[in-house]
Amino acid sequence: MKQQDVMPADGKLGIMVVGCGAVSTTFITGVLMARKGLAKPVGSMTQYDKIRVGRGDNKKYLNYNDIVPLARLEDIEFAVWDVYPQNAYQAAMYAEVLNEKDINPVRDELEKIVPMKAAFDKNYAKRIDGDNVKDCKTRREMAEALREDIRRFKKEKNCARIVVIWAASTEIYVPVDENVHFTLAALEKAMDEDDREHIAPSMCYAYAALSEGAPFIMGAPNTTVDIPAMWELAEKTKMPISGKDFKTGQTLVKSGFAPIISTRCLGLNGWFSTNILGNRDGLVLDEPANFRTKEVSKLSTLETILKADVQPELYKDYYHKVRINYYPPRNDNKEGWDNIDIFGWMGYPMQIKINFLCRDSILAAPLLLDLCLLSDLAARAGRYGTQHFLSFFMKSPMHDYTRNEEAVNNLYQQYTMLKNAIREMGGYEADEEID
Amino acid sequence: MKQQDVMPADGKLGIMVVGCGAVSTTFITGVLMARKGLAKPVGSMTQYDKIRVGRGDNKKYLNYNDIVPLARLEDIEFAVWDVYPQNAYQAAMYAEVLNEKDINPVRDELEKIVPMKAAFDKNYAKRIDGDNVKDCKTRREMAEALREDIRRFKKEKNCARIVVIWAASTEIYVPVDENVHFTLAALEKAMDEDDREHIAPSMCYAYAALSEGAPFIMGAPNTTVDIPAMWELAEKTKMPISGKDFKTGQTLVKSGFAPIISTRCLGLNGWFSTNILGNRDGLVLDEPANFRTKEVSKLSTLETILKADVQPELYKDYYHKVRINYYPPRNDNKEGWDNIDIFGWMGYPMQIKINFLCRDSILAAPLLLDLCLLSDLAARAGRYGTQHFLSFFMKSPMHDYTRNEEAVNNLYQQYTMLKNAIREMGGYEADEEID
Amino acid sequence: MKQQDVMPADGKLGIMVVGCGAVSTTFITGVLMARKGLAKPVGSMTQYDKIRVGRGDNKKYLNYNDIVPLARLEDIEFAVWDVYPQNAYQAAMYAEVLNEKDINPVRDELEKIVPMKAAFDKNYAKRIDGDNVKDCKTRREMAEALREDIRRFKKEKNCARIVVIWAASTEIYVPVDENVHFTLAALEKAMDEDDREHIAPSMCYAYAALSEGAPFIMGAPNTTVDIPAMWELAEKTKMPISGKDFKTGQTLVKSGFAPIISTRCLGLNGWFSTNILGNRDGLVLDEPANFRTKEVSKLSTLETILKADVQPELYKDYYHKVRINYYPPRNDNKEGWDNIDIFGWMGYPMQIKINFLCRDSILAAPLLLDLCLLSDLAARAGRYGTQHFLSFFMKSPMHDYTRNEEAVNNLYQQYTMLKNAIREMGGYEADEEID
Amino acid sequence: MKQQDVMPADGKLGIMVVGCGAVSTTFITGVLMARKGLAKPVGSMTQYDKIRVGRGDNKKYLNYNDIVPLARLEDIEFAVWDVYPQNAYQAAMYAEVLNEKDINPVRDELEKIVPMKAAFDKNYAKRIDGDNVKDCKTRREMAEALREDIRRFKKEKNCARIVVIWAASTEIYVPVDENVHFTLAALEKAMDEDDREHIAPSMCYAYAALSEGAPFIMGAPNTTVDIPAMWELAEKTKMPISGKDFKTGQTLVKSGFAPIISTRCLGLNGWFSTNILGNRDGLVLDEPANFRTKEVSKLSTLETILKADVQPELYKDYYHKVRINYYPPRNDNKEGWDNIDIFGWMGYPMQIKINFLCRDSILAAPLLLDLCLLSDLAARAGRYGTQHFLSFFMKSPMHDYTRNEEAVNNLYQQYTMLKNAIREMGGYEADEEID
Repeated sequence: MKQQDVMPADGKLGIMVVGCGAVSTTFITGVLMARKGLAKPVGSMTQYDKIRVGRGDNKKYLNYNDIVPLARLEDIEFAVWDVYPQNAYQAAMYAEVLNEKDINPVRDELEKIVPMKAAFDKNYAKRIDGDNVKDCKTRREMAEALREDIRRFKKEKNCARIVVIWAASTEIYVPVDENVHFTLAALEKAMDEDDREHIAPSMCYAYAALSEGAPFIMGAPNTTVDIPAMWELAEKTKMPISGKDFKTGQTLVKSGFAPIISTRCLGLNGWFSTNILGNRDGLVLDEPANFRTKEVSKLSTLETILKADVQPELYKDYYHKVRINYYPPRNDNKEGWDNIDIFGWMGYPMQIKINFLCRDSILAAPLLLDLCLLSDLAARAGRYGTQHFLSFFMKSPMHDYTRNEEAVNNLYQQYTMLKNAIREMGGYEADEEID
Repeated sequence: MKQQDVMPADGKLGIMVVGCGAVSTTFITGVLMARKGLAKPVGSMTQYDKIRVGRGDNKKYLNYNDIVPLARLEDIEFAVWDVYPQNAYQAAMYAEVLNEKDINPVRDELEKIVPMKAAFDKNYAKRIDGDNVKDCKTRREMAEALREDIRRFKKEKNCARIVVIWAASTEIYVPVDENVHFTLAALEKAMDEDDREHIAPSMCYAYAALSEGAPFIMGAPNTTVDIPAMWELAEKTKMPISGKDFKTGQTLVKSGFAPIISTRCLGLNGWFSTNILGNRDGLVLDEPANFRTKEVSKLSTLETILKADVQPELYKDYYHKVRINYYPPRNDNKEGWDNIDIFGWMGYPMQIKINFLCRDSILAAPLLLDLCLLSDLAARAGRYGTQHFLSFFMKSPMHDYTRNEEAVNNLYQQYTMLKNAIREMGGYEADEEID
Repeated sequence: MKQQDVMPADGKLGIMVVGCGAVSTTFITGVLMARKGLAKPVGSMTQYDKIRVGRGDNKKYLNYNDIVPLARLEDIEFAVWDVYPQNAYQAAMYAEVLNEKDINPVRDELEKIVPMKAAFDKNYAKRIDGDNVKDCKTRREMAEALREDIRRFKKEKNCARIVVIWAASTEIYVPVDENVHFTLAALEKAMDEDDREHIAPSMCYAYAALSEGAPFIMGAPNTTVDIPAMWELAEKTKMPISGKDFKTGQTLVKSGFAPIISTRCLGLNGWFSTNILGNRDGLVLDEPANFRTKEVSKLSTLETILKADVQPELYKDYYHKVRINYYPPRNDNKEGWDNIDIFGWMGYPMQIKINFLCRDSILAAPLLLDLCLLSDLAARAGRYGTQHFLSFFMKSPMHDYTRNEEAVNNLYQQYTMLKNAIREMGGYEADEEID
Repeated sequence: MKQQDVMPADGKLGIMVVGCGAVSTTFITGVLMARKGLAKPVGSMTQYDKIRVGRGDNKKYLNYNDIVPLARLEDIEFAVWDVYPQNAYQAAMYAEVLNEKDINPVRDELEKIVPMKAAFDKNYAKRIDGDNVKDCKTRREMAEALREDIRRFKKEKNCARIVVIWAASTEIYVPVDENVHFTLAALEKAMDEDDREHIAPSMCYAYAALSEGAPFIMGAPNTTVDIPAMWELAEKTKMPISGKDFKTGQTLVKSGFAPIISTRCLGLNGWFSTNILGNRDGLVLDEPANFRTKEVSKLSTLETILKADVQPELYKDYYHKVRINYYPPRNDNKEGWDNIDIFGWMGYPMQIKINFLCRDSILAAPLLLDLCLLSDLAARAGRYGTQHFLSFFMKSPMHDYTRNEEAVNNLYQQYTMLKNAIREMGGYEADEEID
């Protein structure tokens, strides 16, 4: 494939964000500020990273947009859904992530971004209590109302293309049910029959996006697109999907630090991870049913990097525990503390402690930008279905568990996958292997 | 090249270690215990790592010794030089790194390893005060006496091949002097003239090893083999050299953690590293002239991973400081504390703190094993001169600074270089690029 | 009162410990070793502390045993109850707290300490599974069997006095029930009627001890003696009681660190405490019903030091959270991580993080020694009922909540209370106030 | 003494601050904001603390100003000296300690506070480079010029009383010289003779203040008033002096944490303290001669709390090391990391790590307020010479080393001394002892 096979990024790109909280408003504000030259989109691969293309004497290091046609920041239009009616300016101020001086220059633009009514079901997030909510009788109605939102926004803003991204709360854990989630037909039947136990509101967003020809990205640990029925829909609509759970603080460090251990053939006795966070995300996760969703997502990281089957003497029996604690004094400034018990020569133990004082939304915002731009790129390149090359951005990357496919969690292997996809879409040769 | 081009690892391999302190005795004891099946050589790549060879459908994951012919643990004979006369058992007990129960089963063998007199000059390590020292009039005599030691040991133990590895203290900083260190002729002249300012004792060890047809490995930050004169000697004798400074605690983490930051295009404002350590290494480094050698070695790590010229908006101005503190209560259990000031989206700051409670000798021991086995392998494969593929094990990898060649410090790029060399020596195709 | 009013410490003191686990065996081994001069009982106030007696020109600093008559280490006899039949030597080896070389010199003595059958009810500690258990039909029988144990041991070892101390696991949370726990009569009736819901096995131990004229000390967070019925029994039998929960790692630090904040009039936004521990204590606390008991005990510490009613602008709204995590890699080496969010001048926030790598049993052992010796002293001094001066050693000091009496948790106020009691029993004047 | 013996706080109090940097402007801004009701002076004992007066049934808890007559915030006038000419508003903005919104409401008042020319000698602070400096031929002239400043300010602002406080940089270390610093006569002679080696500029400030009937407070580690000549001058002028070095971050924690260890009779093997700070204070301390002054001040803290002579088995041999590192990324947000190696029962080691992310000026500001108000109080109460009761606020409290008097560093003993002095000046009985 050569670059010319990728459709150009002409016209406007509409980015529709589910949720108008700390993450969304930090993302939107940053993009608006950046295109005025008032802020730098640090952390964004599409804006900063340079990757090697070519080999040997022919190699060179290029930015993504010199390899593939990406949508420009100037061409983006934003829309949001939220259960609270506050506009993006109000929401950004309430979030207290950004300083006032970093919001005010784009206040007018932000005030015009007013949340559409959310497709919401309080059973999926007990701690959330807003009333800017659609009145739908069934899950099918919910999906249709969202499709209508997408069509209307696309038309009003004259967008050439749309991407839908979930940046809202974690829903309660919905175990995959073979009878409902394995085929598109069964999923649609359940929507028609208003099966509220198996059809999370997030599934209606994904269904609506794909049906309207828009890529869908799941930024929370919800299983939304992690089901064969959605894979089928993505194939059918020829749209990219990706997920799940933005890889921000502790898991970012974990997926980057665990390779240090494995690369040096050190052993692991245990890894204890605790988090304190105080924003709405923390509040929702304080509810055990919602935490369960997150925990499942977070635990999987280590297991595919430090593999018991490959190195049983090193990784057979380690104890891995993840705790998330709602702690309001911190607000968005979430903090992770990891204690890692390793062992070396002759089995002697050593300890590593990592304390990450991070900012959830600051780490997440560039991921939203990259995921939207790259999903749009993938659509134009004719890459549909699960986008493995976006695993880099995800805490719990999608993988076809029905075929025992394993997720790649090693940050550097994920990075190679990302680079390879960009190379391929740019008409360059990719590395054949990632390890 | 195919594997058959590598000479087989027949006969005994003599490993001669400069220094019989904590690191050396932990290494030797571990090897002796491992070959009795009483301990596991955790942390050793040659004993544990599995690397991919082949690609696509033909790929498989093999241990090193299934790809290339490595010397077996059973075939190793040990010798040591030290300024103190205590045998390896006494030294291991004194070091207090290993528990008695992990030493006693090989006590007899350890007791037979009695230090040969060291080539020593107190001006190079003021805090060291032993008298098991050679009486040499000139540096030339020193080198010749060491050559004699090597020949005698090789003969006595009936070794087929010898490797010499430095695991002794850091010497004072010897700046590279173009007039002395740039050609072999000038170096030899200085040895003849007993130029004690420019010829460190460690250079006599390296000179002796190479002259006797043995690879030499520099495990301290001494500039010993980091000079063109030694490169010339290695070319001439067709012997591998490598250095410098075993990558153990803090720098291991740094060279593994910095890639997380760069890979995610996060910015860096500052990195502060402090160390506390109480063993003889710490004592020596408490002397400013010796610390200077170490500092130069440790500071270079970041600069080649987070590059100001490639990403000026992210890495232009960061402040990097490394402190090493002698702190006797800790003995060998050295500890690092790193504070990392990063910035993300719109320039917002975040912090990471890493506290590594490590054990110097436990981390170093497997490096000694790997470096000896792989240097011996390289010699048999006809690879001589600077061994870039061993950068993985080094805090400050050798590079030809006379040609502005840059060292590779990124742990994962170093790992790829290591794998590539093993693949090549095993007759497999290597990856063409490391990034 | 003068010192002569305190009965002398003549004859043997029998110390009967409930539980023969890590804490108990570390305590017993240490005492046996110390009296042979082979170990130092560091951390013990009775063995090390020097307190001021007298004032002005008459003041002097004396050890406790120069002020009051304490039992000598040489006069102690030990007995234990446990659900596992292993003797104290086996249990000490299993606990892996002490090195073999610190146990072996008293191996013979330890082997002779064989657990008596425990009074046990599996419903109170689901994770514990031993069968060295008394076969009792009712709680009354349980108490009577324990009394028999006490009498037999006292006679066999020819002890002049007995102290009973609980160093076993945390039981499930037993809320105080006014109908059962408020009078001795009601308590005895419930024992007779075998009310297993309200009468924890630990209550039978306390009942037995007091009835046999022995002080009782509760080292776990069980409510055992924290009920008016037990206070009544202690009054009746003229015996001292004290509790609850040995103040070892994190709470020790908390009760010592919180005063720094209050003393400087700094404000508090939040305090997050997490623990990882892997011994049997951790295993038991992994069970939610047992953790509840612990949590109630640990949370109370701050509230009485940083008082919202006294300094509402500083301490009105802080968020205090305590998590305990079972983490087997650590065994007895439990570890606490505290994050403290304070604020200062003009409300500006600051953070303190405390990482305590402690050893549960090493910190607890001297408390057992002090509590036993001081409870015995109190009994001889005619001080009965709740021993407030022992609050110093307790995570959750006893206090008469029926009269809204508040516990003293400030470490330095507790210390003054301790010193005052020693001074008084030694015939010296005590300070009238503790703040 | 009864409270009526203390002169009332009538009229205005002029506070003259040496230095108009981060600490000074944070202090001044906070006071101005607080008296408008726009900020809370958190951390200030005089504004928040309540202490017990009376005993037994007669005890009550009162704020300081209900016990003694303190100057009111409303009655304070400010003046500053600085080598830079920026006014207090500009300096506050430059310091970046306070947010703009916390400065702007008092911008007008701050702008009127313009630095008088400083008495400065570049040899005492090589890294400082301002030119708002007095042109004086001799140290005597320097002192006289400062006296003139004090008289002028007092008159202009119609102040009833003046206090002078040093909040400027650390000068280079000036060892006490018996020939110059031991008598007032010798000191004055050296000033007349312009002995620039022995007379630091700070001594001229102190000399001027005392000579003009104003108390003097030394907030840096300079030895200024730590010499018998100044004690003599303070006696002669009947003025209070106090010092030295505001106890803010790490030492505050140390003087509060060390008592936890000593109170529990735990042993100490070592205490390693490292600091990173990036403000002007850090820049100055990056100069070895200035750091030396600080180091001497900081090291003394532990030695008087954990006393080798009183508890040799616990505190005989510990290793105490303090490092301060200039690290610009942090600016005023200095950070301490302490590693504490303790030992307990049978000598078993444990570790505590404390990471204090503090703000230098936020912690210092309330100290300035308290020290000024309490020094003024002391003057009105006729307490002159060294004010031991202000040790609470000092890193290295003044003590008469010529008589081998020992400083009190234990935070809680210092607090008792503070309370006692307030009680006495309020006409209440003080506690006779502090331990």
